[in-house]
Amino acid sequence: MSDQIRKGDFTLPGESGYEQLTLQLAETWGADVIRDSDGTKLSPEIAQAGYRIYSTICIIREHNAFALAHPETQQQCFLLSDAVMAEGERISIEPLKGYFSEQFQINDSPEAMPYWEVRDRTSGTVVDRSQWVWQDGCVTVTGCERWHRYTVSFLCWRVWEEINMYNHTTNHWTSEHLRQLDPRHPLAWAFLQDWLENWCLENPQTNVVRLTSLFYNFVWIFGDDPRRRTRFTDWGSYDFTVSPAALKAFEQEYGYALTAEDFLQKGRLQATHRPPTPAKKDYMDFIQRFVADKARVLVEIIHRHGKQAYVFYDDSWVGMEPYGPYFSSIGFDGLIKCVFSGFECRLCAGADVPVHELRFHPYLFPVGLGGLPTFMEGGHPEKDAMDYWLHVRRALLRQPVDRIGLGGYLHLTEGFPAFVDTITEIADQFRQIKELHREGSPAALPIRVAVLHTWGRLRSWTLSGHFHETDGNVLIHINEALSGLPVEVCFLSFEDILSGGLKDVDVLINAGRAGDAWSGGTAWNQPELIAEITRFVYEGGALLGVNEPSAAPGGDSFLALAPLLGVDVDDGRYACHMPWSFQTEDPSFAVCRETLALKPNVRLTAPDVTVWAQCGGVPQMTFRTCGKGRTAYLSGFTYSPEAAVMLMRLLVQLTGIREEGIASADSMLAEAAWFPKNRTLVVLNNSDQELKTEVNYPEGKVTVELKPLEMRFIR
Amino acid sequence: MSDQIRKGDFTLPGESGYEQLTLQLAETWGADVIRDSDGTKLSPEIAQAGYRIYSTICIIREHNAFALAHPETQQQCFLLSDAVMAEGERISIEPLKGYFSEQFQINDSPEAMPYWEVRDRTSGTVVDRSQWVWQDGCVTVTGCERWHRYTVSFLCWRVWEEINMYNHTTNHWTSEHLRQLDPRHPLAWAFLQDWLENWCLENPQTNVVRLTSLFYNFVWIFGDDPRRRTRFTDWGSYDFTVSPAALKAFEQEYGYALTAEDFLQKGRLQATHRPPTPAKKDYMDFIQRFVADKARVLVEIIHRHGKQAYVFYDDSWVGMEPYGPYFSSIGFDGLIKCVFSGFECRLCAGADVPVHELRFHPYLFPVGLGGLPTFMEGGHPEKDAMDYWLHVRRALLRQPVDRIGLGGYLHLTEGFPAFVDTITEIADQFRQIKELHREGSPAALPIRVAVLHTWGRLRSWTLSGHFHETDGNVLIHINEALSGLPVEVCFLSFEDILSGGLKDVDVLINAGRAGDAWSGGTAWNQPELIAEITRFVYEGGALLGVNEPSAAPGGDSFLALAPLLGVDVDDGRYACHMPWSFQTEDPSFAVCRETLALKPNVRLTAPDVTVWAQCGGVPQMTFRTCGKGRTAYLSGFTYSPEAAVMLMRLLVQLTGIREEGIASADSMLAEAAWFPKNRTLVVLNNSDQELKTEVNYPEGKVTVELKPLEMRFIR
Repeated sequence: MSDQIRKGDFTLPGESGYEQLTLQLAETWGADVIRDSDGTKLSPEIAQAGYRIYSTICIIREHNAFALAHPETQQQCFLLSDAVMAEGERISIEPLKGYFSEQFQINDSPEAMPYWEVRDRTSGTVVDRSQWVWQDGCVTVTGCERWHRYTVSFLCWRVWEEINMYNHTTNHWTSEHLRQLDPRHPLAWAFLQDWLENWCLENPQTNVVRLTSLFYNFVWIFGDDPRRRTRFTDWGSYDFTVSPAALKAFEQEYGYALTAEDFLQKGRLQATHRPPTPAKKDYMDFIQRFVADKARVLVEIIHRHGKQAYVFYDDSWVGMEPYGPYFSSIGFDGLIKCVFSGFECRLCAGADVPVHELRFHPYLFPVGLGGLPTFMEGGHPEKDAMDYWLHVRRALLRQPVDRIGLGGYLHLTEGFPAFVDTITEIADQFRQIKELHREGSPAALPIRVAVLHTWGRLRSWTLSGHFHETDGNVLIHINEALSGLPVEVCFLSFEDILSGGLKDVDVLINAGRAGDAWSGGTAWNQPELIAEITRFVYEGGALLGVNEPSAAPGGDSFLALAPLLGVDVDDGRYACHMPWSFQTEDPSFAVCRETLALKPNVRLTAPDVTVWAQCGGVPQMTFRTCGKGRTAYLSGFTYSPEAAVMLMRLLVQLTGIREEGIASADSMLAEAAWFPKNRTLVVLNNSDQELKTEVNYPEGKVTVELKPLEMRFIR
Repeated sequence: MSDQIRKGDFTLPGESGYEQLTLQLAETWGADVIRDSDGTKLSPEIAQAGYRIYSTICIIREHNAFALAHPETQQQCFLLSDAVMAEGERISIEPLKGYFSEQFQINDSPEAMPYWEVRDRTSGTVVDRSQWVWQDGCVTVTGCERWHRYTVSFLCWRVWEEINMYNHTTNHWTSEHLRQLDPRHPLAWAFLQDWLENWCLENPQTNVVRLTSLFYNFVWIFGDDPRRRTRFTDWGSYDFTVSPAALKAFEQEYGYALTAEDFLQKGRLQATHRPPTPAKKDYMDFIQRFVADKARVLVEIIHRHGKQAYVFYDDSWVGMEPYGPYFSSIGFDGLIKCVFSGFECRLCAGADVPVHELRFHPYLFPVGLGGLPTFMEGGHPEKDAMDYWLHVRRALLRQPVDRIGLGGYLHLTEGFPAFVDTITEIADQFRQIKELHREGSPAALPIRVAVLHTWGRLRSWTLSGHFHETDGNVLIHINEALSGLPVEVCFLSFEDILSGGLKDVDVLINAGRAGDAWSGGTAWNQPELIAEITRFVYEGGALLGVNEPSAAPGGDSFLALAPLLGVDVDDGRYACHMPWSFQTEDPSFAVCRETLALKPNVRLTAPDVTVWAQCGGVPQMTFRTCGKGRTAYLSGFTYSPEAAVMLMRLLVQLTGIREEGIASADSMLAEAAWFPKNRTLVVLNNSDQELKTEVNYPEGKVTVELKPLEMRFIR
């Protein structure tokens, strides 16, 4: 490996007051770019040291003076009061009781009040407007049904920008609480354009404006009681985009009006993990177009000043999904994704944008996103960094990105020399992988995998948020495994299936829990969907169902695809019905048992199912030939390096494709990639143990001994 | 204890060819009655030995000659073919394929054919009659939608009486397969009356005709493949009562027609564990009246001959539920219940009939109901007997029955002297308990417990079948625990709640799984039901929910009673919503942890809930004050002696009643009863270990040392 590639493609977070450290680490890590971060500034010494400069802007934040002068330009949301029991015929409800008063202020303006609603939650009915009044901070309801529960749906202003709120509460910030503007308000929108124009003029040294991100934050609703500080948080929901103006514009365009209940949904809101109502789908498209239209204007301003516009895909990103229909029309020059995992790397790498950059974790903050110490006593940031790198590395081997980097307070690295060494090593490995890809793609099997769920392409790779925020969902484990496998992966919606989407698919995967967006919920009530997948399998396709795939309680099985899988989940309907019994496990497939779930209500519904794993007489992993195709069922799937290898072997079994032309390691703790153009074999040790494995590749077979976590290049 | 009560109240199964053994065991066990059993006969020596004689009759069986001469008088049922996939536009379905051919014969008579149906199970639609023909043993369907699945619903004759079929297949009987007649057929009904008349004339020695039981067996559908020999078995369902004649009579009376699908329900049938459709409720009442009307005629014949009519509550009992509205009108002189458990003892003891008799297990057969060896090598019938007795004994202490007995082949006891001794001991204990009750009831707490479920009083104590057949349902564990507790117990339906049924209730229990008959399913969509229970609790009542009580997915919580419990179960709707956290368990209640379930989707929905037990941060047992009342939640409940004691202590906590006037033991492995009239304290060791416990009772406190399993009387 030449020295030349030990430099470049690395974004360093600089910090004013730590000029020497900044320039020294820029040298050590081979940085070509220096950036500021939320809470840090760059001094002239840094800015003029010959590096390209990224400057972070959160466009809707840091305008408190304007927000206070024009409070009607602030962002809003719907909230639902906690329910109040009617012990008599008259009750009083304080709408915001139980919510964090520093985050919300009631909006009882004339524009907002028509959207307020009182509901009888016991009977599920709306209370007539004549039965309630809003006065002195309370909604008083009369004529209540005794022993029924009542709620108030209302609009409120969000008076503390949520990422700022998070940093205050987690990292003990004490500065002024920042507010946020809604670009839908004409005053705010004019102000923001002017502000950006000025900013560009005042920051000639900046090469790249790093937008963090656009307008609307993912949803984060705080409670007033520390025993439930976070009431709701969803990285993908649209509840923070709403306002009377948005509702009116929507009604004008779509010809129907949304109500508070369209957002509040009995208090559950519409989390990304749940299938959307048709109204929500309309609303999301409406917001996505709005966000793209406004973002395009900002990008044009930036370009006019000879700068580039990169967008950070986190925080106030709602409505700009990189796989959404309007993203590429915005004209961003780069996409920066913070990553813990392989699936996030693929998400970034596959987006339609010129430059793809990963911002690694840990962020240079005292406390990590999971709430544990990082750059403080008790923290091991070098271990964290290597742990995340292990996930990212295998994905990068499949599909490269252009750049990597870090963020946060650089001075926190002092006292953590092992972290500095680890990042040096990671940057080096990254540059070597990138170099390999430059000459040609790694070999892959001709297996085209399609992951099927409600959102399809819009939610490619991610469910919503990071791995640790969504790890209760089996699909994120599947996605993480797929991110490093030598196969093609795409994401299909149910609509895609019905419009011929299966024609380029070899293996269809559906993985989720009954009723969620990943399994699909009521989508499975469509007979044409079931018939199309049946055709696909009978004509030779492969189907993999995980946990509660295709669960649709209305059918004659619980899993709509049970007739293909030969496996069903008993939701109670099988009471008194015996399942097909099986003698023993079939030993022909090497099962990674730890990855499977104990799911006692799984049963065989056909006699011709091969059980590859069982526990206590309950099938956990099955395989079946069905027409000319094959199907498999997994009770669960928890990501691990071995689980990923098992999934790869299962894909081979399901397709019947011969495993040739690629590299593959014997050990389930290893993975290998073959770059035919460079004639380079790459072998990964995915474990923290020394490892010896045989590797088969097109030019022969080698035995490799690897150090813990090692990546070995063999030319 | 005097010698006198060492005799009587015991029914011995006699056996021809073992006269000496019969008379000797009659003496040993203090029998006053000798009976025959299914498969045994009594010889004149036995019948004339001075004992009262029970003779077993299964009225619809043992008439093969008549059945073969009049095959149209045999019983029937609906079956659903296995689904066939339409790979083209034409398919062929063999209706009975996969069913046990010795049990069923297709009924394609002109009366039956109009009830046949072909359904597209993928789209859930009925196929037009013009699209299919029944010919040469196949239904051929044309114009199929490709890749849809089709079924045939059809009527068939049941040509092997199911208990006889069970005995052949389990106990290796080789005699002729017995058929069964349908009393709804006029020819059969005339024949059965004549036959009973003659039987009475020919059996002058018989004192009691022991009917086993009446007309329609519980449902037991066999498959042809030993890997799924039993396809469906439900001790409480009505599928074996149907015939074209029944359907016509129903239509005439109710003004609407039932179809095959009313019975088949997408192939799932209507198990007792599932809430019935309105049509099924009508149909059950229709059958119950028919059964009572016909049974009344048979009882009158028996009475006319100076004999008594006892009914055995098992096998072909369907439609004669002892807690049903027509049971007492039949005029039975006694009810005999076979028992493994305490709840079965209470079921028998509480029925409105003059004589209550328990038939103990094990039955004198080589193989037990669970399929394990009993009276053969490897069997330990004395252990089985004592194990069941431990369950029954505590229930008998609360409510007595009149008699006990055994059944089966008496000669099988040879070689099992320990069994003979155990039965001697059990009979002795039984007589002592009965004697105590004669002078007055045991002391109880003034706690009136109501178990709330779909069936209410109709399914008092039992769910359907024995404990080991229904032990996957949490309610049977609760019922078993309640059967021996010093409280009043009743069973209410949802209709009862709405008609003032809560007025005599202190603690309401709902225990089941979402959607089942015990939790209640769609009953919980009634706001008036929720409001009434809310009123009950707020005004001072107590509510205990177990596992998934009041689960109603349509509401704003998953458990309709979550606002009272402060606990909900997450079916996915809480995605992204944080639960209320809690610091630690409250140590003020002694929890029997083994009885609780690991149910990871349980969460607190209110801050004022006390957590008595948790596992991995998930609440398992909670307690809450709600208005003037109290509520508790248990994630699960598995019966054990300790669990029963814990339930008792929980009832005390829920009601706030002082535990006085009764006897109570310190040890959770002991129970005690105080009979104030006899001034007798009874202490039970419910364990197979030696035990020392303090017992508090109204006259003081004693320390008792008990042998394993001992029952101690202290006067």
